[in-house]
Amino acid sequence: MSSITLKKLSLTIFGESHGPCIGGVITGLPAGHRLDFEKIDKDVLRRKPGKDGLSTPRNEEDKYEIVSGIKDGVLTGAPLCVIIKNSDTHSSDYSKLADIPRPSHSDYPAYIKYNGFNDIRGGGHFSGRLTAPITVIGSICKQLLEKEEIKVVSHILRIKDITDKSLLDCNGEDIKKLADGKDTVCDSVVENFYKLITDAKANKDSLGAVCECGIINMKPGLGGPLFDGLEGKLAQLVYGIPGVKGVEFGIGFDFAGLSGSLANDCYCLKDGKIRTKTNNNGGILGGISNGENIVFRVAFKPTPSIALPQQSVNLKTGCEEILEIKGRHDPIIALRALPVVEGIAAIGILDEIL
Amino acid sequence: MSSITLKKLSLTIFGESHGPCIGGVITGLPAGHRLDFEKIDKDVLRRKPGKDGLSTPRNEEDKYEIVSGIKDGVLTGAPLCVIIKNSDTHSSDYSKLADIPRPSHSDYPAYIKYNGFNDIRGGGHFSGRLTAPITVIGSICKQLLEKEEIKVVSHILRIKDITDKSLLDCNGEDIKKLADGKDTVCDSVVENFYKLITDAKANKDSLGAVCECGIINMKPGLGGPLFDGLEGKLAQLVYGIPGVKGVEFGIGFDFAGLSGSLANDCYCLKDGKIRTKTNNNGGILGGISNGENIVFRVAFKPTPSIALPQQSVNLKTGCEEILEIKGRHDPIIALRALPVVEGIAAIGILDEIL
Amino acid sequence: MSSITLKKLSLTIFGESHGPCIGGVITGLPAGHRLDFEKIDKDVLRRKPGKDGLSTPRNEEDKYEIVSGIKDGVLTGAPLCVIIKNSDTHSSDYSKLADIPRPSHSDYPAYIKYNGFNDIRGGGHFSGRLTAPITVIGSICKQLLEKEEIKVVSHILRIKDITDKSLLDCNGEDIKKLADGKDTVCDSVVENFYKLITDAKANKDSLGAVCECGIINMKPGLGGPLFDGLEGKLAQLVYGIPGVKGVEFGIGFDFAGLSGSLANDCYCLKDGKIRTKTNNNGGILGGISNGENIVFRVAFKPTPSIALPQQSVNLKTGCEEILEIKGRHDPIIALRALPVVEGIAAIGILDEIL
Amino acid sequence: MSSITLKKLSLTIFGESHGPCIGGVITGLPAGHRLDFEKIDKDVLRRKPGKDGLSTPRNEEDKYEIVSGIKDGVLTGAPLCVIIKNSDTHSSDYSKLADIPRPSHSDYPAYIKYNGFNDIRGGGHFSGRLTAPITVIGSICKQLLEKEEIKVVSHILRIKDITDKSLLDCNGEDIKKLADGKDTVCDSVVENFYKLITDAKANKDSLGAVCECGIINMKPGLGGPLFDGLEGKLAQLVYGIPGVKGVEFGIGFDFAGLSGSLANDCYCLKDGKIRTKTNNNGGILGGISNGENIVFRVAFKPTPSIALPQQSVNLKTGCEEILEIKGRHDPIIALRALPVVEGIAAIGILDEIL
Repeated sequence: MSSITLKKLSLTIFGESHGPCIGGVITGLPAGHRLDFEKIDKDVLRRKPGKDGLSTPRNEEDKYEIVSGIKDGVLTGAPLCVIIKNSDTHSSDYSKLADIPRPSHSDYPAYIKYNGFNDIRGGGHFSGRLTAPITVIGSICKQLLEKEEIKVVSHILRIKDITDKSLLDCNGEDIKKLADGKDTVCDSVVENFYKLITDAKANKDSLGAVCECGIINMKPGLGGPLFDGLEGKLAQLVYGIPGVKGVEFGIGFDFAGLSGSLANDCYCLKDGKIRTKTNNNGGILGGISNGENIVFRVAFKPTPSIALPQQSVNLKTGCEEILEIKGRHDPIIALRALPVVEGIAAIGILDEIL
Repeated sequence: MSSITLKKLSLTIFGESHGPCIGGVITGLPAGHRLDFEKIDKDVLRRKPGKDGLSTPRNEEDKYEIVSGIKDGVLTGAPLCVIIKNSDTHSSDYSKLADIPRPSHSDYPAYIKYNGFNDIRGGGHFSGRLTAPITVIGSICKQLLEKEEIKVVSHILRIKDITDKSLLDCNGEDIKKLADGKDTVCDSVVENFYKLITDAKANKDSLGAVCECGIINMKPGLGGPLFDGLEGKLAQLVYGIPGVKGVEFGIGFDFAGLSGSLANDCYCLKDGKIRTKTNNNGGILGGISNGENIVFRVAFKPTPSIALPQQSVNLKTGCEEILEIKGRHDPIIALRALPVVEGIAAIGILDEIL
Repeated sequence: MSSITLKKLSLTIFGESHGPCIGGVITGLPAGHRLDFEKIDKDVLRRKPGKDGLSTPRNEEDKYEIVSGIKDGVLTGAPLCVIIKNSDTHSSDYSKLADIPRPSHSDYPAYIKYNGFNDIRGGGHFSGRLTAPITVIGSICKQLLEKEEIKVVSHILRIKDITDKSLLDCNGEDIKKLADGKDTVCDSVVENFYKLITDAKANKDSLGAVCECGIINMKPGLGGPLFDGLEGKLAQLVYGIPGVKGVEFGIGFDFAGLSGSLANDCYCLKDGKIRTKTNNNGGILGGISNGENIVFRVAFKPTPSIALPQQSVNLKTGCEEILEIKGRHDPIIALRALPVVEGIAAIGILDEIL
Repeated sequence: MSSITLKKLSLTIFGESHGPCIGGVITGLPAGHRLDFEKIDKDVLRRKPGKDGLSTPRNEEDKYEIVSGIKDGVLTGAPLCVIIKNSDTHSSDYSKLADIPRPSHSDYPAYIKYNGFNDIRGGGHFSGRLTAPITVIGSICKQLLEKEEIKVVSHILRIKDITDKSLLDCNGEDIKKLADGKDTVCDSVVENFYKLITDAKANKDSLGAVCECGIINMKPGLGGPLFDGLEGKLAQLVYGIPGVKGVEFGIGFDFAGLSGSLANDCYCLKDGKIRTKTNNNGGILGGISNGENIVFRVAFKPTPSIALPQQSVNLKTGCEEILEIKGRHDPIIALRALPVVEGIAAIGILDEIL
């Protein structure tokens, strides 16, 4: 479903890319917090299309309205619903796509699942645009975590063979930079990333990437064994973001190259506290937080909509056909997804903290 | 929780490594299927400790008893409970561990979460032994999928720099080999894997690995958008297996190195059916199966229990201390985990098929 | 939560009585059904406040807008969100209530739960007004059940000592009357009900009542044992309607006065089909539908808001105080609740049918 | 499912009346409580069959074994599984029932649902015997509530036209009596109840009854609006008990006979605390506890298995047939169900308290 029920919170997302509006509802938020709208606006801006030359030229105002769950700017404890109107829609671009599924998009499997009744304009309910309400709701959850002194940050870790400094190696200053809204830890890396993206765009192509997200100053003892583990919970939430194809914790797949003696996070004392020397496990052991920063990585595939011609099959005629996608698309999903990843992680962690 | 509720099925795992027994309950299975106990036995044997020189010398009979949900060997539709008695337990090995948490184990965060009341003998409820009932239940679910002509197979894809042939490249013959219970597609690779494992064991060390699992002959149109996506569902289930630190679909993290024009799975006609030329997305688009094989990879960390001395902190004295773990442990989790990964995947997919 | 996740469907309700709008989201509806808006309008009208002299004079247009999940009036399979704007709000009426909780309302326990941050204007999120989106969504579910030849009807069964004919005794003609929107089976009874209500209103008082709901032409074999039983599922949904204090199935509490020999529903053959002679169990045995009409009864308490003076305690001063509620209120909840009860039952049954 | 997932707890029940054993698993219990086995034994004895002349002569030892989740008698926080072996089974009594469904039993709808594959011996998974593990688990939850000074008590409120004093009118002394294990508040009433039961048994018949359950010294502010309401939560759990056909809170269906001015629970000050003068709402307003005792009533139907001949239909021959049930059955469900009702209520309330 487009709805997920956690322990204390539930989240439901609705709307289609070219419908009257999109939105989301979160239930279970605690009462009494005064929203900092500037912080929400900032996250919305980070996700906003058309914010710079690097993303889709679709220019949405993304003006959100919180229609329930607050009074005079303070959370009431009732379900909070955020609504975002759609405006800059060019549905005619999609008229032809009804018959020819775009490669690596949801078009074909959705056609099977919904017997062709789904709204395919702009990807319909499968559009990346649906992450806008997640961003708003997630940003609110980040504020609530900040009251517990927990910060959620993220950055682009890798595109092609260029790699940013990992959160597993970051110091407080590095994290502060990300908390201020930077896309990478290293300034030199961001330039190289932007160049790759600009090139891809010029080539009518797109790029995949790895994002890394950190829950900083995490409390120990949250989560649980087996299906109550934090890894599974966060992974399920993160896989709810369109375009995600991999989620790993700590050094993740690199564990396959290490022996236990090198991989294990030995305990030591730091400032009188029990800590680990390394954080290869990304702050989670046995499904439970161990007090280190939770660090996970997310693989985003390249935007499947590219302007280059691609082979597909016409569902009506049953013949192979060359498809050229017009529309307006991002050369990279991952860049705009950063506040979405942070937001969805914040929802999952807040659910454990409450 | 150690319980998960899916759409039609629910699964609950109970027991501790050194308690009287461990077990699991699955609800929602359809009535009428006659169990093939030989197939279950075969999967249990694949997971069994002490089966060869490569795994822990703990020698459990692993004799399972199905105490409910069947009558005369046929599923009744009532909850199916499987119980496995513990016998070969050496609890005295663990007396010292009460105070000194083993690195990269659940000991320390569980101590925090349960205020020290958890049963730590053999890892208690966090032990890999808890995967035995998952294997039995998963093996039953695999049988039910086979009635729908769907096969679930797996293999060790990678240890250190040695890599088996991927399921994304496998033909029918390769898959048959895995269905017959082989640990790898390529015979030459398995020898190299066994050598690495034997060496690690000799060095009192352990190894991580990547498993790859395939849902062969999958039906299109299952799953759904956002939090109903198959990736998130399977990931949450798979992260329920102790030791898992990464889950990716199709080429997963390798998407970060590709442009869209190379990564997209273009459509073509094969035998009059709409198929994709490549399967980089691992059979899932927009959270929905597209009819290709579902292929996902699972990163297992090295067994954290190693015989080499490691640094830890004594929870009672508050001092750093060198820990030497006695016990009996696997040099590698991933090898015995193959039927567990298959089983848990089968549970998830069966839930969608029902 | 104000959200409930069933097997295939999830339902989330949001909004406050005096906020900008209220609404609801249902996920999991099947694609392809063309909505009959006249039928929805009819149910909305049955629930509408101010429709006749018998209910609250608050005059809401109750114009609903379905903002997602449909395209050209046809269900797409995506989450369906309905929004209803609030317009005729007199918030000043509630200024005093912030400090003095209304007897038998949610005011006091909500004050405790939300630390006083909840929106109390018009009852906020606890208002009966929140049943408007349930009515719209439930009406859609009734349409989907009608495609399976299942009808959902209801009526006022009892107010004080006046009782309508029970659905357990109704013939096809009686049921047709209710399906056409009548409030009772017997025409004579409705007049007496209206008189009781008019009197209560004149006395600045209110009335409780019992509603009875029937799922007509129900399929056998749906539901399940223990916590999967239809009774528990329907009861939980129905208790989600504000003002409900009792739910019974078949003859319910009257079972306490009967012996088994009189209470048991013996089997017989009717038109070659296995049927029961009586339907004391209301169509459900062992939690599973037996093919008879499902019949359940719902006890609504009297509208707690009455114009008569009542004793309460001022939360600020801590002193007992006499409260006179101004506002505009229904003399009876149950009458307007009929389409809500039908709707919520339809949601529960549809979830089983899908 | 025979599994239910609450906010913090999950409960799964398994087993069949004539299988090797029955049992249950609860997850999410807090660690650290030392079990008082005498209290559990007492509740098991209250539910035990054959305890006196009034119930079924089936004589089960009902010796339970807690196989996980405790160490040295103390809760560890891991899933707690309780297993009860079946011993005194007379399966031959049921050989004929395979073809002729017993009136008002689950036999016929279960036959439809499971295509005849369900285990019908002794009612299989639908047997009242499945409430034995609920009793053990519920008794543990009652202990945990007692640590919070909350007591759960129950009694038989009504059989035919004989009625015990309601918990809504009880003083501390009355409640103490019930806490000590009495079946009624008034000693005179219990004699009359026993006489009715003895008569029914002599007549080869059975009796329905109303139980009343109280959560004494309940905290205010627990529960929530709409589908998070305590009434719906408790009702769903209580309907999981076989034989329940009605659940009402406070005066429940009697609200239909009252006007608001008589029904409303006005506030007053008692010992400086805000309390209600009456408790017609049974301690719950708007789905949230208001600090008064939670009081609810449960209608149990008469035991459907009676020795008197009854009409049924032979599923094989398709002919009407007279059925005489041999077996051994209770003349009344409600009496033995008291600790079950208390236990299931304790599970629900504990889930809110945690």
